[in-house]
Amino acid sequence: MENFKVDVALEESKEKLFEYLNKKQYFKGRDELLKYHAVDIAELLEEIIEEIGIQKAVIMFRLLPKDISVDVFSSLPIVDQIDIINVITDVEIEYILDEMDFDDMIDVLEELPANIVDKILEKTPKNERTLINTFLNYKADSAGSLMTPDYISLTKEMTVREALKYIREVGMDSETMYTCYVKDSGRKLQGIVSLRTLVVTSKDSMISEIMNEDYVWVNVDDDQEQVSDEFRKYGFLAIPVVDKEHRLVGIITVDDILDVMEEEATEDMERMGGVIDQEDKDYLDMSVWHHVKARLPWLLLLMCSYLITGTIITRFEDVLSSVICLVSYMPMLMGTGGNSGSQSSTLIIRGMATNEVDTKDALKVLWKEFRISFVVGMVVSGINFARIIWLDNNSIMIALTVSSSMLVIVIIAKLIGGMLPMLAKKVGIDPALMAGPMIASITDMVALGTYFFMAAVFLGL
Amino acid sequence: MENFKVDVALEESKEKLFEYLNKKQYFKGRDELLKYHAVDIAELLEEIIEEIGIQKAVIMFRLLPKDISVDVFSSLPIVDQIDIINVITDVEIEYILDEMDFDDMIDVLEELPANIVDKILEKTPKNERTLINTFLNYKADSAGSLMTPDYISLTKEMTVREALKYIREVGMDSETMYTCYVKDSGRKLQGIVSLRTLVVTSKDSMISEIMNEDYVWVNVDDDQEQVSDEFRKYGFLAIPVVDKEHRLVGIITVDDILDVMEEEATEDMERMGGVIDQEDKDYLDMSVWHHVKARLPWLLLLMCSYLITGTIITRFEDVLSSVICLVSYMPMLMGTGGNSGSQSSTLIIRGMATNEVDTKDALKVLWKEFRISFVVGMVVSGINFARIIWLDNNSIMIALTVSSSMLVIVIIAKLIGGMLPMLAKKVGIDPALMAGPMIASITDMVALGTYFFMAAVFLGL
Repeated sequence: MENFKVDVALEESKEKLFEYLNKKQYFKGRDELLKYHAVDIAELLEEIIEEIGIQKAVIMFRLLPKDISVDVFSSLPIVDQIDIINVITDVEIEYILDEMDFDDMIDVLEELPANIVDKILEKTPKNERTLINTFLNYKADSAGSLMTPDYISLTKEMTVREALKYIREVGMDSETMYTCYVKDSGRKLQGIVSLRTLVVTSKDSMISEIMNEDYVWVNVDDDQEQVSDEFRKYGFLAIPVVDKEHRLVGIITVDDILDVMEEEATEDMERMGGVIDQEDKDYLDMSVWHHVKARLPWLLLLMCSYLITGTIITRFEDVLSSVICLVSYMPMLMGTGGNSGSQSSTLIIRGMATNEVDTKDALKVLWKEFRISFVVGMVVSGINFARIIWLDNNSIMIALTVSSSMLVIVIIAKLIGGMLPMLAKKVGIDPALMAGPMIASITDMVALGTYFFMAAVFLGL
Repeated sequence: MENFKVDVALEESKEKLFEYLNKKQYFKGRDELLKYHAVDIAELLEEIIEEIGIQKAVIMFRLLPKDISVDVFSSLPIVDQIDIINVITDVEIEYILDEMDFDDMIDVLEELPANIVDKILEKTPKNERTLINTFLNYKADSAGSLMTPDYISLTKEMTVREALKYIREVGMDSETMYTCYVKDSGRKLQGIVSLRTLVVTSKDSMISEIMNEDYVWVNVDDDQEQVSDEFRKYGFLAIPVVDKEHRLVGIITVDDILDVMEEEATEDMERMGGVIDQEDKDYLDMSVWHHVKARLPWLLLLMCSYLITGTIITRFEDVLSSVICLVSYMPMLMGTGGNSGSQSSTLIIRGMATNEVDTKDALKVLWKEFRISFVVGMVVSGINFARIIWLDNNSIMIALTVSSSMLVIVIIAKLIGGMLPMLAKKVGIDPALMAGPMIASITDMVALGTYFFMAAVFLGL
């Protein structure tokens, strides 16, 4: 496995590297680093920063060839980028930011303290400064915050020969040149041409003849989740971003979408697990205090629901103390209710996230969940009826109380689990919040209410 | 919003289309379809299949221009592809499979009944048949099952001019030509060259001078999750796949990785929600029976754990009936334990999936979870202590029993939640199985055990 092999090699190199640094054999250290891809060098630098300290890391960073050092810098986590910027000189900072891809540079500037950003902006030419300021103002998680202004723009009147010549002149270090954009004099987007088409078409064709006018675009204010849906749906490598007047303002490339998808999935899972997401920091990098802030509010909120369950139980204390064995089935009824609801809500939340299920399918979902829960509930309650009588040696009436409760609880739990995420979406709350912990709290109340009702019916209590 | 606009337009077109089909105005229907991208046409065909039937859908499908019909076919879900294949003629099947991207064709062949596949293979030339058979044998979810053999291969001895000429000749309809692969006579991979480099370099340079020998590759047996990690890490558009002898056997493109990431995230979430994943079918397409099969086993498994909780309670029935108010705090203690554990396990499972947390970080995780749970536990149990005394008017001893149990339960739950996914990974079980429902069942037992122990300590029961 390639992955595995690089990991093992990196581990070995790390040890060598740490030894070289200890002995101050910095050039040997650099040669060790240069065996790797910039992304892997960044990983090793991260380890140096964490385990030896920023000073030694910067020594190594400075010894890297300039072009590689920029790629390495781009691959570092933002916290380490800031650490390095705080140590290196202004001239070095300027060089790095100048050479970075525009969108990566914006990400760094966004995290830097305002006074450093001002100092950097002072030295940039006016038109670039305006562009940077525009980009800094795009809302986080919007298409604007993902895009880069580094794209190739052509005009309809060019021939393929002219277009290729132009690309050769400007496109030297742009990874984003596989799709070229055709704009009119008012910067409005008119069509797109792939580099592939340019290469395989006759040199004398006009761009206007070969451009594709049937392209998909996103608006600069669109949410990043929508943008990633478009990429997934159509399988694009890049997508143009336009403003309200349909002027091309930038493009988004698929590599940034991989990160968005990862981020969105993490966010959904955290919400489903009852954790409030804290920016996008790593588990180990987050302080204890941050973790507490991410978890305590949910626990306290859910605890309020237990005030209600507590009250229900207190009202039926007499019932319970007269037939104390009823208590021993409580955890099973509440737990199975929670699990049944979780299953349904997980499937619906995920289905909505991947656009397979829509709120307008509510009735279909309800009907499907009803049939599923009926089958599941019958099996589960049948098994319990049998075990209460033969295993626990309890009366038929107790068995009836528990197993009929079970059936009703499973059905209600699954209906709630199916509906609640849809309801949330309808009123504009993230459906992912309506998962496990939330459903479990609600089904707990349902379970107890049903249980005591059935006890009244079958046991006359 | 672009997305939104297309959705609204599609909805309107669907109604028009259904009307045309009703009136048998098929050409009008075709013109309506042709307003859209192939992916959207496929979506409309899907609706026709579902709501009107396969016959009318095939009429529309046949009226599409041939080149578009292939793209539309490729974009349909596999179930609908099979439906269409069952209705159209052998000649039509042959044409479509011939024109499809190789990897998409393999996906279709994999789902077709063996006798139809044999019939198709009979008619394909021998060398292609061998290739198809090799591809059909790659394990699902392996790099081999994702790759396509449609790539551009160059040799070291070519000049850039020759390379571009070759690309112009063969590369007409390959979306995958942005990276070209340099092979020796033994088909071993020697390096890669991007189309970008070819376009911007002088025509007389040799491929050997400009090729990049420091490329990342994957093995044909690597798991798709590993492959997607590589894409995410390095931001590639395509990655070469080699066999054990380092011979190039295919390439994987980033658009397929978007689907893999989606699939893997769905799988993780379903496991975390206590659902067994059923191939990759949509919620609404899955039958009730499939849903039951996906859910019942987990519910039954978890129910076994409630046998234990039930037994614990039965053993302490006397304690409970002498201080019946203890019962009313049971749901809160079990619930909060479950929620606390869920939070930790969710973060760790996701951290391991995105390679931020590793099993070798176990001690760090343990120490962090301990500190977090201590803070969270103190707050939660403090609040409960107060409310039991002032709100519920219970004795200090009961308050001490409940609140000290709460602290211990939160700490143990978070430690279990942090460790169990790591332990699972260590022994080769999917960590995602150790999420919500599983943790909740385990913490239920811990909660009851702790609670009755504390009751013995503080209430002398």
